Amino acid sequence: MTIDLPPVTGAWRAGDPVGERRFLRLDRKVAVDGGDVLDEVEIAFETWGELNSDASNAVLLCHAWTGDSHAAGRAGDGHPTPGWWETVVGPGRAIDTDRWFVVCSNVLGGCQGTTGPASPHPTDGRAYGSRFPVVTIRDMVRVQARLADHLGVRRWHSVIGGSMGGMQVLEWAVTFPDRVRSIVPIATCLQASAQQIAWESIGRRAILHDPNFRGGDYYEARPGHGPHQGLSTARMVAQVTFRSDNVFTEKFGRDVVGGSETLGGVSRDQRFEVERYLEYHGDKLVQRFDANSYLVIGRAMDLHDVARGRGGLEAAVKRIVVPTLTIGIVSDILYPAYQQIQIRDLLNAHGVRAEYVEVDSPHGHDAFLIDFDQVGPPITRFLDSID
Amino acid sequence: MTIDLPPVTGAWRAGDPVGERRFLRLDRKVAVDGGDVLDEVEIAFETWGELNSDASNAVLLCHAWTGDSHAAGRAGDGHPTPGWWETVVGPGRAIDTDRWFVVCSNVLGGCQGTTGPASPHPTDGRAYGSRFPVVTIRDMVRVQARLADHLGVRRWHSVIGGSMGGMQVLEWAVTFPDRVRSIVPIATCLQASAQQIAWESIGRRAILHDPNFRGGDYYEARPGHGPHQGLSTARMVAQVTFRSDNVFTEKFGRDVVGGSETLGGVSRDQRFEVERYLEYHGDKLVQRFDANSYLVIGRAMDLHDVARGRGGLEAAVKRIVVPTLTIGIVSDILYPAYQQIQIRDLLNAHGVRAEYVEVDSPHGHDAFLIDFDQVGPPITRFLDSID
Repeated sequence: MTIDLPPVTGAWRAGDPVGERRFLRLDRKVAVDGGDVLDEVEIAFETWGELNSDASNAVLLCHAWTGDSHAAGRAGDGHPTPGWWETVVGPGRAIDTDRWFVVCSNVLGGCQGTTGPASPHPTDGRAYGSRFPVVTIRDMVRVQARLADHLGVRRWHSVIGGSMGGMQVLEWAVTFPDRVRSIVPIATCLQASAQQIAWESIGRRAILHDPNFRGGDYYEARPGHGPHQGLSTARMVAQVTFRSDNVFTEKFGRDVVGGSETLGGVSRDQRFEVERYLEYHGDKLVQRFDANSYLVIGRAMDLHDVARGRGGLEAAVKRIVVPTLTIGIVSDILYPAYQQIQIRDLLNAHGVRAEYVEVDSPHGHDAFLIDFDQVGPPITRFLDSID
Repeated sequence: MTIDLPPVTGAWRAGDPVGERRFLRLDRKVAVDGGDVLDEVEIAFETWGELNSDASNAVLLCHAWTGDSHAAGRAGDGHPTPGWWETVVGPGRAIDTDRWFVVCSNVLGGCQGTTGPASPHPTDGRAYGSRFPVVTIRDMVRVQARLADHLGVRRWHSVIGGSMGGMQVLEWAVTFPDRVRSIVPIATCLQASAQQIAWESIGRRAILHDPNFRGGDYYEARPGHGPHQGLSTARMVAQVTFRSDNVFTEKFGRDVVGGSETLGGVSRDQRFEVERYLEYHGDKLVQRFDANSYLVIGRAMDLHDVARGRGGLEAAVKRIVVPTLTIGIVSDILYPAYQQIQIRDLLNAHGVRAEYVEVDSPHGHDAFLIDFDQVGPPITRFLDSID
């Protein structure tokens, strides 16, 4: 495969705004893996810290499914939620922005500033909707590479991310082996498994069958009346897979809304606290996320396979030649620890330095966002260990 | 709690049809836990083997969520599928019908012959639909007790079942301690966990939000156009939890319908085999099962808690005084093995003979229906060991 790098079009300068969302409009079209061409692509990104003179201190963070460029910082304009890795990224934190120039961008197909299905189609100015192409994790990474060019980052000190972010991390190392000095894939996989695809496809189905989905062209039909029920159901499925049996038992047990079921009888309207929790998360996502983006990114995750078109898994993994810290979570039912161990083992098998750290948390997949005290220190040590 | 037993109204006689579905219309109303009263209840049941002269060889099988009375035998009239435990139940099989008088009945709220939401309401002859009450596992068991009376079975040699069947098994032992000589709960639990409720509630939501659900009164609106999409989605969620990551990887991996994705590119219409499998199972259930029954039974499972109204879990479990064989499945993600071990441990703690057998299968929860060579022999030995 030929790596097609665009010329460097700009560089980050001291004095540029930091920790605020900025936009880069690409000066070239983007041809995606599925064969379509996006004529205009804009990337939303944020940076923290300062790029040093030889551009050797840049760290790229890759966000997960419904994340965005706002890895750190408060909620505010353009940021419906506080930074998703606020506890890990910042001055004096595990990924120390006094030391590293940290970058995070919204992925291609997203809905938090980077071109996605809700963006205007250049030919008619109306939302892409169903016209938005299938994109892959590789497409996301290729677009990030153009952002790196713009920022003047030829080679990342490290590329770090969990879940779908970890898929991007792995694709960075496989697609652009000379543009990374190290990688930290967390709670992720080299190839989406059948069970991961199964969960994703059920959520997709819930959205597709919502009558307000209208084949994906719901933006203009009744603004504000998209496939909310479907998206909410999809999120509820995901939310269960993001956590664990243990944590649900501890947090909710059999509590019912407004009292204890074990004391009382059985009523028709009784709702369990865990139901309320899931509905809360479903409804919360609807407020901040576009259903088409959810589908496009979900599909990219299904299609994630570092081996595709590269002569098999081992051949693909052999392209990873940089030190790797892979982090797994003991209670992760969605991206089980064995998938992280597989990354370590395959890399070690061809002589690459790869270390596996297991987070001992009951929180399931989401532990990489929660247990910062276990996730942060190994990352700090690992970043320090890379020349 | 007072156990309210109806008088014996009939007894099984040699010469009665066996292995065919029969019906018992109860001669008294059924008051359910939620406070409602069902004026007319009919029970669909099947029997295999012959009841001996002192009625000491009767074994009750309790079916799971979408099961029915057809535990053994071919598909045919009234039986859309072959017996769900065909490999375990029959002449010379693990539950030997040459020796045991085996009974299985469709649960209250079901749709395979026993009164449920699709049954005619006695006041107007139209389907209950949304008027069908909340029922509990205890309600199901109380109705089964009336069937036992009818058959002349005062005390079951054993009550056996997996998943929701196992919930009934446990309720039999707690509600009617003097009517069981032993029990075999399989891949089940004493109290539905928050995660089990979570999965169930997502399926319920998919059905409730299907526009064809019409609040549960869809039977007459457009016959044959019930909430099929919703029920199918609900089944897909369940189907993933019934199996395992391992088995999905082995069976489907990343195969796509009509070819291998890893060789080719990325297309918009590409479907993974695991998606086709889930849709197949969703559609198959729609052909044979009523969405309202799915909801009623699912709710009964959520409400399953042997402790409810009994002064706590330990107090409830102390009512179980008979030998118990509990069977767990190592790969079960829905009713994890620890729930079966808990049953054994709580029973042993108050001096009751309880044995735990673990099925070493990759098939997940459904292994109790699949790995008959591991499930059958311990049951045979256990049944033989009960005086």
